[in-house]
Amino acid sequence: MTAQPVTVAQTMMRNDRASEMLGMTVLVNQPGRSVVTMTIRDDMLNGFAITHGGFVFALADTAFAIACNDSEFVTVAAGGDITFLKSTTSGDVLTATALERAKAGRSGIYDVQVLDQRGGIVAEFRGRSRRTQSPAPA
Amino acid sequence: MTAQPVTVAQTMMRNDRASEMLGMTVLVNQPGRSVVTMTIRDDMLNGFAITHGGFVFALADTAFAIACNDSEFVTVAAGGDITFLKSTTSGDVLTATALERAKAGRSGIYDVQVLDQRGGIVAEFRGRSRRTQSPAPA
Amino acid sequence: MTAQPVTVAQTMMRNDRASEMLGMTVLVNQPGRSVVTMTIRDDMLNGFAITHGGFVFALADTAFAIACNDSEFVTVAAGGDITFLKSTTSGDVLTATALERAKAGRSGIYDVQVLDQRGGIVAEFRGRSRRTQSPAPA
Amino acid sequence: MTAQPVTVAQTMMRNDRASEMLGMTVLVNQPGRSVVTMTIRDDMLNGFAITHGGFVFALADTAFAIACNDSEFVTVAAGGDITFLKSTTSGDVLTATALERAKAGRSGIYDVQVLDQRGGIVAEFRGRSRRTQSPAPA
Repeated sequence: MTAQPVTVAQTMMRNDRASEMLGMTVLVNQPGRSVVTMTIRDDMLNGFAITHGGFVFALADTAFAIACNDSEFVTVAAGGDITFLKSTTSGDVLTATALERAKAGRSGIYDVQVLDQRGGIVAEFRGRSRRTQSPAPA
Repeated sequence: MTAQPVTVAQTMMRNDRASEMLGMTVLVNQPGRSVVTMTIRDDMLNGFAITHGGFVFALADTAFAIACNDSEFVTVAAGGDITFLKSTTSGDVLTATALERAKAGRSGIYDVQVLDQRGGIVAEFRGRSRRTQSPAPA
Repeated sequence: MTAQPVTVAQTMMRNDRASEMLGMTVLVNQPGRSVVTMTIRDDMLNGFAITHGGFVFALADTAFAIACNDSEFVTVAAGGDITFLKSTTSGDVLTATALERAKAGRSGIYDVQVLDQRGGIVAEFRGRSRRTQSPAPA
Repeated sequence: MTAQPVTVAQTMMRNDRASEMLGMTVLVNQPGRSVVTMTIRDDMLNGFAITHGGFVFALADTAFAIACNDSEFVTVAAGGDITFLKSTTSGDVLTATALERAKAGRSGIYDVQVLDQRGGIVAEFRGRSRRTQSPAPA
């Protein structure tokens, strides 16, 4: 019986302070695929009493980072686009599912869909990744 | 001497829990223009010990929300695109400057540039706004 | 036996001069789904002898317009993002497949993948649609 | 008296079949800055009798390509986002003005604004460039 190699994504998430502070839970962490969930808190609301877009983006971006870190080298977010489709508020539970869509050389495209607990589409995110030549941190 | 009318952006920021939690300071709050600053903390770092993209986006998104809430009605973010150009870490001071670029009917385009304390361009964000028909919250 | 109602997309494509000029062929025209193909010509090349990005965008945008015009009202493109992944040249045959991804009120998100004749991913396009209140042209 | 060096953008435009076919005229061709104009023709209209978005994109993309090809190496479009703000039709004269916004290593961000002959904002485009290691074609 052989041990599975530890991926960059696993090491990365072990050291991730931001996702811990925001109360994210990683449900799936696989090459090219991930699911991350987060419950909206009062201190994540903007001045209109709805979830600040930054936290929806942060959840999607974390799912994206896990899905794209599938090699022995660090892959970073070059950028991303998000469309907000439904507002949420304190107590709502968001789930982000990331899937690899395309790769070309060191570049990749990943789609992340964010749903609420009723299955409503909260946001659609598309991330642009770039694999660096830095080995994964220990 | 007449009092200035209170804009939606001012009411909005008075009630904004998210920007308070993240330690943002609003330096400029004008119709079509804003400047917001934030110091990166240890709990904003991802697993590579650099600032999680979600917080850079949150800062830009806040500056965008202030700049676009220039009417008596609530204006929301329909979406946005961010390109990450330079990584930052704990202790760095980020400043986001938002400017209105174009308006057409109830839609608007706003550009936000995020700089670090050395003037390096950390990110370029472009927000897409949509003015609703809801009056500003009290 | 009843005739199928003519959709906006069908009327639209019958009158479309641009797609005719560019030699596009519509293979699938259904609500929320379309396939359009186009062969690259010498006069579609840029100064580096590769297909000008504008024509790749035009193909994807046409597939998007067909997929999103699924109601009795005209739906227009509010915008779109394209990532170019592989260059092509004269004689290559491009195929764009559009799929509805999400809808919220009068807004929609559509993904279009553009492949070449060898199955290589040429571009990934994501369109943002907005349904108007104008009835379809006759 | 010394001759100005010929830039990649100048060589590129001399060989550009696409912009010639579309009737574009380059008014400004400088490093980081360009202006290109094009008159809309009947064969650029879509099925709603308005300019097909692909041609608005093609004009903006050409202005972007000129502005970003400011070195001795070929710079390509990695992608771009366009927001359509005003429709146009046959006979309208569009002018695209491109400006460099940010650079980081081999990546760049360029903004292109497309106006009609009355100064109305037709579209806002943001291009993402990537400098290759290929020397300019002769």
